[in-house]
Amino acid sequence: MKRTAIIVAGGTGTRMESRLPKQFLRIRQEIILMKTMRTFHEFDKSMDLLIGLPAGEMSTWERLCKDENFQIPHRLTEGGETRFHTIKNALQYISSPSVVAVHDGVRPLVDQQTIQRAFEKAEASGNAIPVTDIHESIRMVTTSENKAVPRKYYKLVQTPQVFHSDIILKAYQQEYDPDFTDDASVVEKSGVSIHTVKGNPENIKITTKKDLAVAETLLQFMEK
Amino acid sequence: MKRTAIIVAGGTGTRMESRLPKQFLRIRQEIILMKTMRTFHEFDKSMDLLIGLPAGEMSTWERLCKDENFQIPHRLTEGGETRFHTIKNALQYISSPSVVAVHDGVRPLVDQQTIQRAFEKAEASGNAIPVTDIHESIRMVTTSENKAVPRKYYKLVQTPQVFHSDIILKAYQQEYDPDFTDDASVVEKSGVSIHTVKGNPENIKITTKKDLAVAETLLQFMEK
Repeated sequence: MKRTAIIVAGGTGTRMESRLPKQFLRIRQEIILMKTMRTFHEFDKSMDLLIGLPAGEMSTWERLCKDENFQIPHRLTEGGETRFHTIKNALQYISSPSVVAVHDGVRPLVDQQTIQRAFEKAEASGNAIPVTDIHESIRMVTTSENKAVPRKYYKLVQTPQVFHSDIILKAYQQEYDPDFTDDASVVEKSGVSIHTVKGNPENIKITTKKDLAVAETLLQFMEK
Repeated sequence: MKRTAIIVAGGTGTRMESRLPKQFLRIRQEIILMKTMRTFHEFDKSMDLLIGLPAGEMSTWERLCKDENFQIPHRLTEGGETRFHTIKNALQYISSPSVVAVHDGVRPLVDQQTIQRAFEKAEASGNAIPVTDIHESIRMVTTSENKAVPRKYYKLVQTPQVFHSDIILKAYQQEYDPDFTDDASVVEKSGVSIHTVKGNPENIKITTKKDLAVAETLLQFMEK
């Protein structure tokens, strides 16, 4: 079945204290968003890539592609007010039936095994998201409760989150809810049970300069 | 009130694939356990330090102290079969009333502000543990359930975990339970409510060579 990856690159650089949005900074020598796209492209060269970028960043991106002689085919789609709106906009370009991955542009350290596990499980079962174990003790802390909870029952959620097109298209017809933190929570609210697969622990989201430095360190270990 | 820190350094080096236990490896140029002890000592020079070490590592430690001319006063206590048993053994040397911190020897990046917040809250309220926010989406995954949970209600738990001596001495008279993942869970099981304070995000536990490389990266940011 046709595969598409929507890569969300909505950042405008404020948290990174940089004039360039975080997805345009470099990890080692490569622009973060290009590295992310390259990993998906190398996993499956026939996959369509939709890149959700703020309208104001498109000309910068086009200049960067030219400067770097970046050849991976892709289509730009306009970023919205929130991640939900960015994805909803990109979903216009999805043909059905197909399989759709949504991935954060600032997770360049996703490995091909994670992408493969997520696609294969989604192709078999309708959806899949990568998760990792939590190594610290965790507690539930609310206004009324503060108690240890068993960490073995909790998982950290990554991307790519992969869905059959009919499932994700239906889910994104719901009203926006600020409690949506990822695509799985949107799909889950539409009544679909979510499947998990193993992520790779290096697949962190780069949102600060410290994250970027940590990611460069992790990259050394991935190459060993 | 008298303050004591029990610093648990029970590792024997298997996970680190090193002949030296992880607490004896170096972060930058300093032996991890020495850096951890130095941070507590510099926070309060009158604090007693009890170091829980496997019996088989004590001679190595003494040689390292001599080689490094390490002068911070401390007492060694013998490590037990599990972390619980190591701490229970160290608690024999606690005088009451006092305030007792338990800290992982392989968390050398705890900062003095975290130590201060934990001691001050425990001195005022009986106990305190440092926690940090979770930045990823999280899910509860059990054999019967797999659902998004609101990450704002969950915290990652660090050390030092600080308690009035009477509270921790009583708690460690309970039978050992494999579900104990930290001291707060032991104390909580004895019927005491736990207070949280803000930890510092760099305060990670170093259990692999990758963790050590990440910690060295984080250390650069702490020094900025």
